[in-house]
Amino acid sequence: MKKFEEKTVKSQTIFKGKVITLVHEDVELPNGKQSKREVVKHPGAVAVIPITKEKKIMLVEQYRKPLERSIVEIPAGKLEPGEAPEVTALRELEEETGYTTEKLSYVTAFYTSPGFADEIIHIYLAEDLKKVESPLTPDEDEFVDIMECSLEEAEKMVAEKKIYDAKTAYAILYLKTRGL
Amino acid sequence: MKKFEEKTVKSQTIFKGKVITLVHEDVELPNGKQSKREVVKHPGAVAVIPITKEKKIMLVEQYRKPLERSIVEIPAGKLEPGEAPEVTALRELEEETGYTTEKLSYVTAFYTSPGFADEIIHIYLAEDLKKVESPLTPDEDEFVDIMECSLEEAEKMVAEKKIYDAKTAYAILYLKTRGL
Repeated sequence: MKKFEEKTVKSQTIFKGKVITLVHEDVELPNGKQSKREVVKHPGAVAVIPITKEKKIMLVEQYRKPLERSIVEIPAGKLEPGEAPEVTALRELEEETGYTTEKLSYVTAFYTSPGFADEIIHIYLAEDLKKVESPLTPDEDEFVDIMECSLEEAEKMVAEKKIYDAKTAYAILYLKTRGL
Repeated sequence: MKKFEEKTVKSQTIFKGKVITLVHEDVELPNGKQSKREVVKHPGAVAVIPITKEKKIMLVEQYRKPLERSIVEIPAGKLEPGEAPEVTALRELEEETGYTTEKLSYVTAFYTSPGFADEIIHIYLAEDLKKVESPLTPDEDEFVDIMECSLEEAEKMVAEKKIYDAKTAYAILYLKTRGL
């Protein structure tokens, strides 16, 4: 038995959407009592920390409906079924910035909200960016602004709450520990 | 108008649970076309980076139903309605570790999954921990194991995927940039 395992007694799919599926579960706790868990299933995502030859970070600004505002983030996108994260990384990088790279390296992966969702995000570093002549374009419901900035400028955007999400906050600390 | 704003045309609440609410929205995009957005509403959370007098990090292991496994995290919990994050921070710290502090400082805040959820997490640093004689206890459906470890041991747990979530990965980099 796994540590503190919560066995599923009953599982009900409430909603199946384009992106997420919501499941409501009755579980048996380690002490034998029962409780309920709300679980959001997500296909997983990939994010890329893109560094230009001039040692600038490329960031994208986009509207995030759950927040009712736009924020500035590292490029990211959902995994397609069966797709290797490296493939998603290069596709999202090209779609959102118009750049590609031959120098892609794995940084880490983490769950974003383990209390209620199974979303995992794989983080890659893309260095020595090259402009693509006729790049892939974003999804038709995706509108993004691209910017290049220094680590100091990115840290200023964190303080101003323009950068305001976990993966981008992580990326900035990562570049700081590593030296951009 | 906000940058790239997506106006809500229709909003339907699909599910209201103990923790999350799921809303399905029809939106008007900046180009006038329509699309759908799946939005998870969450009350927000607080996480604490607890540092003992011996410069060890206190971590908690707990089962996370969405992942069907236990992971090791910094102590965290949901905001109660109208509650100041500092109050949540001290309560969750005491409930999950049995310790409290008079030295609580704000680190940052970020959204965990801005693509589909409005969950925000406020991060605090708790130094000079003091043992509470009769501490608050965890919620009755919460089972946690407490551990103290060095920064190096925590980094090893990241490599071994025992630590595997955004807030804790961020906390470890934060302690590294700051010097534990």
